Amino acid sequence: MSSPATRPTIGVFDSGFGGLTVLKELVALIPGADYLYFGDTARLPYGSKSVDTVARYAVEATRFLEAQGANLLVIACNTATALALDQITRAAHVPVIGVVEPGAEQASLASKNGRVVVIATEATVSSHAYLKALERRGVVAREKACPLLVPLVEEGWVEHPVTEQVAQIYLQDAFDDGFHSADVLVLGCTHYPLIQPLLRRVAPPTVSIVDSAHSTAHAVAGRVLELYGKGSPERSAPRLQFFATDSVEKFRRLGPSFLGHRVNWVEHVDLKE
Amino acid sequence: MSSPATRPTIGVFDSGFGGLTVLKELVALIPGADYLYFGDTARLPYGSKSVDTVARYAVEATRFLEAQGANLLVIACNTATALALDQITRAAHVPVIGVVEPGAEQASLASKNGRVVVIATEATVSSHAYLKALERRGVVAREKACPLLVPLVEEGWVEHPVTEQVAQIYLQDAFDDGFHSADVLVLGCTHYPLIQPLLRRVAPPTVSIVDSAHSTAHAVAGRVLELYGKGSPERSAPRLQFFATDSVEKFRRLGPSFLGHRVNWVEHVDLKE
Repeated sequence: MSSPATRPTIGVFDSGFGGLTVLKELVALIPGADYLYFGDTARLPYGSKSVDTVARYAVEATRFLEAQGANLLVIACNTATALALDQITRAAHVPVIGVVEPGAEQASLASKNGRVVVIATEATVSSHAYLKALERRGVVAREKACPLLVPLVEEGWVEHPVTEQVAQIYLQDAFDDGFHSADVLVLGCTHYPLIQPLLRRVAPPTVSIVDSAHSTAHAVAGRVLELYGKGSPERSAPRLQFFATDSVEKFRRLGPSFLGHRVNWVEHVDLKE
Repeated sequence: MSSPATRPTIGVFDSGFGGLTVLKELVALIPGADYLYFGDTARLPYGSKSVDTVARYAVEATRFLEAQGANLLVIACNTATALALDQITRAAHVPVIGVVEPGAEQASLASKNGRVVVIATEATVSSHAYLKALERRGVVAREKACPLLVPLVEEGWVEHPVTEQVAQIYLQDAFDDGFHSADVLVLGCTHYPLIQPLLRRVAPPTVSIVDSAHSTAHAVAGRVLELYGKGSPERSAPRLQFFATDSVEKFRRLGPSFLGHRVNWVEHVDLKE
């Protein structure tokens, strides 16, 4: 593939804050890029919404990021990827990478016995995107919706007995009949990396945890290398711009726990309204 | 006030399903009316969103219900009432009743010592709408945000040890320093009536529970009596129509637990998109 001379501008899209866990990994792996992060915080969460609604929102976000100059798009939202990656890819004029395929790929490599448990939002599970992606790789998957984990993370209860109890209930159910021997747990929602230490304690000890956010960042790094080569992207520090459809103040307040550092500058955006 | 000859068409608006608890009470009190219920399910929850966003959504919903023929509007959503009742009232051409004033009125009547605890969403608490409404009635209020209760109700965990533990943590905090003697607990969110038996067990035994949904239905019944007189509205059975911005199937599935009976007919609506 040819190497355009420009530095990559990577558009990262999520329904809210969760995608910042992907952005954090991206910045660490590809510091020589510019980043545009779009959080559709006025319409979050996507996890409980229908395919049509999520697809419409995601395509609007995609167009916005392209208009802002993104030349590579990362759909850092499991629900949007699971429900609408095809529509997004058709609407976009630049390469698009979602979180499901990299997560499924990593899980299939990590599993020794081809049995995997995926935890995610209700909408991601209903789409069976992980099930299908793993099936194509010869892996049998059990998907488990965990709708309380996102609100628990957003309440800040990342190390809390209630969260541990809820995780225990969900995982007990997920690793039940037929899946006692599953050896990989996929975090199929970008909020879940924040409770990874707690999930580590609650999950069966022999299970490897695969974080889709982390896997996706590696997939994006590979693509950037392909498109832009090794040299140029690392010349200078990353530039980060944030856009949110709801309160800018709230984004600045909640963002840091996902991103790992301060969120300095956020612009408010209205989509088609 | 003059009595128009028409039968009332009551528009009921909520961000999602919670307002169905108000509708349930309304139908029981005013069976001789037509009802239009609008649930903005594609953009729920409002409870974690900013004033500007909630106001914009609520005004759009108001206009929709008026266009459908509503001649009285009930804002059956604490967050929308708390954040945007003024904007809604200005935008509307028919009388508007929100849930905060009726709830505060009932609480001030129920309290013997003028100390009240209000539990609600983050946005309702941040607006201090209940605090101000109770202050105007000489009542001192403590407001407590309980962001996990809505997702717990939506998970169907209405009688579950986790929900009980979460409610205990929230109420312990709410009835703490200075509010040990509070004698009324206001349910400032229309999801909470579904866990009223659980809250009854967890709250201090001497506390009366005031349900804003119930208080609002009584306020609306009073207004209907004023506007339409006693006779005509009770002549025939209520007619119910439902509108939702997200999946119609999901509305039919989740609605009954709030409404207490089947939801037969739901129409999908797009607002300004």
